[in-house]
Amino acid sequence: MALKDKVHEEAVQINEIPWKAFPDALSKGGIRWKMLHASPEMGAWAAIFDCPAGSSFNPHQHVGPGEYLLTKGRMDVRGGKDAGGDSLTAPAYGYESANARHDQTYFPVDSEFYMTFLGPLVFIHADGSPLAVVTWDEAQRAYA
Amino acid sequence: MALKDKVHEEAVQINEIPWKAFPDALSKGGIRWKMLHASPEMGAWAAIFDCPAGSSFNPHQHVGPGEYLLTKGRMDVRGGKDAGGDSLTAPAYGYESANARHDQTYFPVDSEFYMTFLGPLVFIHADGSPLAVVTWDEAQRAYA
Amino acid sequence: MALKDKVHEEAVQINEIPWKAFPDALSKGGIRWKMLHASPEMGAWAAIFDCPAGSSFNPHQHVGPGEYLLTKGRMDVRGGKDAGGDSLTAPAYGYESANARHDQTYFPVDSEFYMTFLGPLVFIHADGSPLAVVTWDEAQRAYA
Amino acid sequence: MALKDKVHEEAVQINEIPWKAFPDALSKGGIRWKMLHASPEMGAWAAIFDCPAGSSFNPHQHVGPGEYLLTKGRMDVRGGKDAGGDSLTAPAYGYESANARHDQTYFPVDSEFYMTFLGPLVFIHADGSPLAVVTWDEAQRAYA
Repeated sequence: MALKDKVHEEAVQINEIPWKAFPDALSKGGIRWKMLHASPEMGAWAAIFDCPAGSSFNPHQHVGPGEYLLTKGRMDVRGGKDAGGDSLTAPAYGYESANARHDQTYFPVDSEFYMTFLGPLVFIHADGSPLAVVTWDEAQRAYA
Repeated sequence: MALKDKVHEEAVQINEIPWKAFPDALSKGGIRWKMLHASPEMGAWAAIFDCPAGSSFNPHQHVGPGEYLLTKGRMDVRGGKDAGGDSLTAPAYGYESANARHDQTYFPVDSEFYMTFLGPLVFIHADGSPLAVVTWDEAQRAYA
Repeated sequence: MALKDKVHEEAVQINEIPWKAFPDALSKGGIRWKMLHASPEMGAWAAIFDCPAGSSFNPHQHVGPGEYLLTKGRMDVRGGKDAGGDSLTAPAYGYESANARHDQTYFPVDSEFYMTFLGPLVFIHADGSPLAVVTWDEAQRAYA
Repeated sequence: MALKDKVHEEAVQINEIPWKAFPDALSKGGIRWKMLHASPEMGAWAAIFDCPAGSSFNPHQHVGPGEYLLTKGRMDVRGGKDAGGDSLTAPAYGYESANARHDQTYFPVDSEFYMTFLGPLVFIHADGSPLAVVTWDEAQRAYA
């Protein structure tokens, strides 16, 4: 077996890379993002999202764990506190477990969050069937 | 933060649990399986598959890495050697990387393999769009 | 096999949990931290660190990948840019790969960063031999 | 961000690679092994072990989950059934959770097992302090 090399470290000055529109098919209200990292071997990825007041992500399922740091604003996940989910104000941390279903992720005020994902997001139809599987690879191509 | 406990160890005598039919919608030719383990936090799972001569799995994509030990028979993955994939005879090991697309996995003789999966299998239509996402949870429910 | 449950989601208002001193044996200069999450199954964990000007972490090795978001200040990793490492100014993202050795991580100004870790930190002697292995479990007990 | 490539698949005919002695410092009784795979990004690895009657592994701790398939013989883990651990006869599957401490892993008869590891093995002194950290990289170099 040929010896394998350690993976390279990476460092990104976030202000030096552009905000891009997050796909309209997967979100509403003008969400922008910066893709920060892809881990092709594990199928992991990291990004930062800029979410204007009133914006939201379309229904999706996490098929691996995801962790976020809300750095600005407010985030209603899984419908928000009134619907049994969580409502958080920056600075906040959240752990979204594997197979968490997010019917609505909503930003009532201008917000920003950083998130690491293990595995893809599966955007879903109303009946839960898969619409699109967004792995690290679809993510990097969407941002490129 | 409440302290969390270590996850429990598990041990399974494989002959003491039943073979069950693997879903017809996802395979052909009478494949049977035993689900051995689910890891709800990582979204990982492990199983052993009994594959009669002539059986195959339907087209699918791994969205995280998978590793297998072929303990009996022969396995043609990614179309087999003649089509640019791999053809292996037991005992053999294989690493299927995240985002590997398996249009056909075929067993020319009676075969058996054990496999660990990080993340789901996404069974796909001919155009690559998702048909069914089989996570550790769908897997455990299909075997239960 | 008994069906397993999905892991619970978690949400933490960061200002509602206390800063605690990071162990003196592993750092210099008054670093404080908040442990945000432990993943006992994967062996992963997440924390936020408050690093006064002039503080540093003692030599350690990452034995799984780690990702950070520098939210304030400046961070010199792997000796900083002048020594072949990286020097970053907030806002910045970094990926520290499995087996990355950090002989010095230094904060020239008051800084803060959030980091997710897969696997433990191994603090090391000058010859590289292990001094202490800090897994998710030692981390949660140190913060408790 | 430059687009990253999918990781390559791997396939190994196990009989075509050599058995090598597992380090004496970490085991007793003539254990041999074949390293099958290293995953540098995740810090994971896979190997198969040939364990003569009476052989054993020295005390160690798993710092990430490990899964094994016992293909021949018998294995007493965590002291075996009489000491509160598990005793398994092939064919058997086992899941060793993150932070599982294995003071003794013993093979009363000629045995063989395949195992996948996420993260390193930490071989430990009697007081639990670290003696050696065996990551995917030390493993590949020991086998090379």
